[in-house]
Amino acid sequence: MPRFALAAVMGLIVQKYGGSSVSDAAGIKRVAQRVVATQQAGNDVVVVVSAMGDTTDELLDLAAQVSEHPPARELDMLMTAGERISMALLAMAISAQNRIAQSFTGSQAGMITDGIHGKARIIDVDPHRVRTALDKGHIAIVAGFQGMSRSTNEITTMGRGGSDTTAVALAAALDADVCEIYTDVDGVYTADPRVVPSAKKIDRISSEEMLELAASGAKILHLRSVEYARRFGLPIHVRSSFSDHEGTWVLPSPDDKITRSQGVALEQPIISGVAHDRSEGKVTVVGVPDIPGKAAEIFGIIAAAHSNIDMIVQNISTQGSGRTDISFTLPMVEGADALQALKDAQAAVGFEDIIYDDKIGKLSLIGAGMRSHPGVSFKFFKALSDAGVNIDLISTSEIRISVVTRADLLDIAVRAVHKAFDLDGTEEATVYAGTGR
Amino acid sequence: MPRFALAAVMGLIVQKYGGSSVSDAAGIKRVAQRVVATQQAGNDVVVVVSAMGDTTDELLDLAAQVSEHPPARELDMLMTAGERISMALLAMAISAQNRIAQSFTGSQAGMITDGIHGKARIIDVDPHRVRTALDKGHIAIVAGFQGMSRSTNEITTMGRGGSDTTAVALAAALDADVCEIYTDVDGVYTADPRVVPSAKKIDRISSEEMLELAASGAKILHLRSVEYARRFGLPIHVRSSFSDHEGTWVLPSPDDKITRSQGVALEQPIISGVAHDRSEGKVTVVGVPDIPGKAAEIFGIIAAAHSNIDMIVQNISTQGSGRTDISFTLPMVEGADALQALKDAQAAVGFEDIIYDDKIGKLSLIGAGMRSHPGVSFKFFKALSDAGVNIDLISTSEIRISVVTRADLLDIAVRAVHKAFDLDGTEEATVYAGTGR
Repeated sequence: MPRFALAAVMGLIVQKYGGSSVSDAAGIKRVAQRVVATQQAGNDVVVVVSAMGDTTDELLDLAAQVSEHPPARELDMLMTAGERISMALLAMAISAQNRIAQSFTGSQAGMITDGIHGKARIIDVDPHRVRTALDKGHIAIVAGFQGMSRSTNEITTMGRGGSDTTAVALAAALDADVCEIYTDVDGVYTADPRVVPSAKKIDRISSEEMLELAASGAKILHLRSVEYARRFGLPIHVRSSFSDHEGTWVLPSPDDKITRSQGVALEQPIISGVAHDRSEGKVTVVGVPDIPGKAAEIFGIIAAAHSNIDMIVQNISTQGSGRTDISFTLPMVEGADALQALKDAQAAVGFEDIIYDDKIGKLSLIGAGMRSHPGVSFKFFKALSDAGVNIDLISTSEIRISVVTRADLLDIAVRAVHKAFDLDGTEEATVYAGTGR
Repeated sequence: MPRFALAAVMGLIVQKYGGSSVSDAAGIKRVAQRVVATQQAGNDVVVVVSAMGDTTDELLDLAAQVSEHPPARELDMLMTAGERISMALLAMAISAQNRIAQSFTGSQAGMITDGIHGKARIIDVDPHRVRTALDKGHIAIVAGFQGMSRSTNEITTMGRGGSDTTAVALAAALDADVCEIYTDVDGVYTADPRVVPSAKKIDRISSEEMLELAASGAKILHLRSVEYARRFGLPIHVRSSFSDHEGTWVLPSPDDKITRSQGVALEQPIISGVAHDRSEGKVTVVGVPDIPGKAAEIFGIIAAAHSNIDMIVQNISTQGSGRTDISFTLPMVEGADALQALKDAQAAVGFEDIIYDDKIGKLSLIGAGMRSHPGVSFKFFKALSDAGVNIDLISTSEIRISVVTRADLLDIAVRAVHKAFDLDGTEEATVYAGTGR
């Protein structure tokens, strides 16, 4: 039996529920029922849970009320209270159904991270307490998003999407058969159904393409969790906690990619979907001396400001001027710090000006076999051109084309590309509100 | 310099703030100012903090929504989120005043308890992380009410008043000069100012008398914390977080008792105050066979139901019947379980009936030298009789007389006794709402 069989899997299942699934007592009870049903079907179950609905925002609001710049260590201490509450309540709700459940903090579940507060990375997973609970026939509930640094003995959090990563890392460490990520939509779509109502649910997608989708702004799975699953060969099943429908299987084996869309010839490019992202801003450094080392100097400054650059474009040097422009995109929330760092270094680097634009949107087309099919690019750019969408930056990979457009044209662009590649389905997608952490 | 000098103490101070002192962002900032001022005066400061205002009730309410009988382990996991939030916020608020503060969970602060969830007892304190923080000149914030069991590796809580006990235990382990308990009244009073508006603040009281006050229903300090302080010879300073006034010093040395009320002859009884308690119910086991071992049988049943008996009275056997009645009081919250346990054992024990009365109140007069001054009892019972208060049960100790009366007469009884012993002051006491844990 292949590990990712779409039929009922019997074995060890790790289920992750986001904040919108456990936003109140009713939600927690509904999740408890699903967990118990999974166990009753003959599986060992480990549940990773995020903080309840608005808890994270409420705690952040309290922090803002007492301090403008809360220390990262204390912010982590504060935020981890959120999962502590939801996991204990979920354990209680399961007990109320006469099953034994034990909740574990990140530290208790052996989620060992580095010491970087607020964006810690997992360096080891030692889930012996979780294993012991399973061996006793108990259901183990684990706090998502949090861990403990072995070097500093401090509580850490993993940043946005951290609970997905907790679930996948635990599943890998426990050699689980599948990691189920429950969310408020019933799978991964060919585009965001809020923008493209005719978007289709993807039944199966390779980890590789899912990585590009996640990196391109699809919010449904966090990038790091997909990377982790791919590295450990772990299948992820993304599905809705509000229904029993099959969701989207994210499969690590490249062999599965081919069989994903039935009836498509092997040599045809297979387009997975269209992702978009409104969370980035664009920085253009104008009049950079066109001499070796200047680009490295600029990106060194950005890196020192702990900002993550996404797309980079350098225009050719304007004839005779000896100067060039460098544009790049980065998360909007990091824009202010990055700009300040650049301004501080203006004299040293010798550029002329900085232009910052946060009214941009990024659109990405993801699919296998793009590079070797020139027709894909042509169809892509023609669709945008026909829709009257001007393109600002372009970047490509083996399985992705991304462009930056004006923010107010992004929805039009997404719909145009989605239609051009025949991704439109016949039914409207079901969309629920909210996202977890 | 005596360790309990009333003048400013320079050295190591442990401060405990209850939930009402940190009920919102403004309260947390006010506490932060006081903590920073204490450090600026030249002291090392360790702060023990309870959960914010209503947090405990909100979490209990959530638990009740998902489960009728939440497992004790998970309840502890849930409740400990409360201090995690308040301590992290307090550390942030202190940082906003440019001091370095580090928060520590009970486990991180080395509060080692037994494994009894919900009412764990401290068995060891190993505050090396707190000490390290102090050595660096940092302010240490410690979560009250919680610890970790060394035998089970589980998170535990210490029950009502647990934060007081955390503070005193930490102060003892760190050899602190004083443990300051901040609350919403400005000290210990000769009676509850809400019942007796003319009650006077007590400036100094012995640990022994404070123990009796606490055991008799005075809510201001938890019994266990006073026991702990007495055992380790630690002075406690009970004071208001809303003012800078001196509060009440609870002093461990018996020598201090005599100098407490200036001008009183050494051989005179010294009345400390009047305490009252509405939280108990009275059980009367009617028609118990008057043969040896029956009382032990009954109290064994109550103990097995994990109920704590307070006062016990056994009437003499009614002439010729061969049967007797045994009455006792116990916390009202434990009444239902205790009654059920007794009913289950009715045939085995052979008693005739059980009567339960939860409309009772307990009044206690506390003071040194009572036993050797018959005039005290006379004055006490005459005051009650003059006020028309009938007495139901009586129990006494070396420094206490307690009686049980009808609940609706309790306030009248407290005022009458308070007046009879000349405890009335000239000013009205300042009372604030709410109590912490």
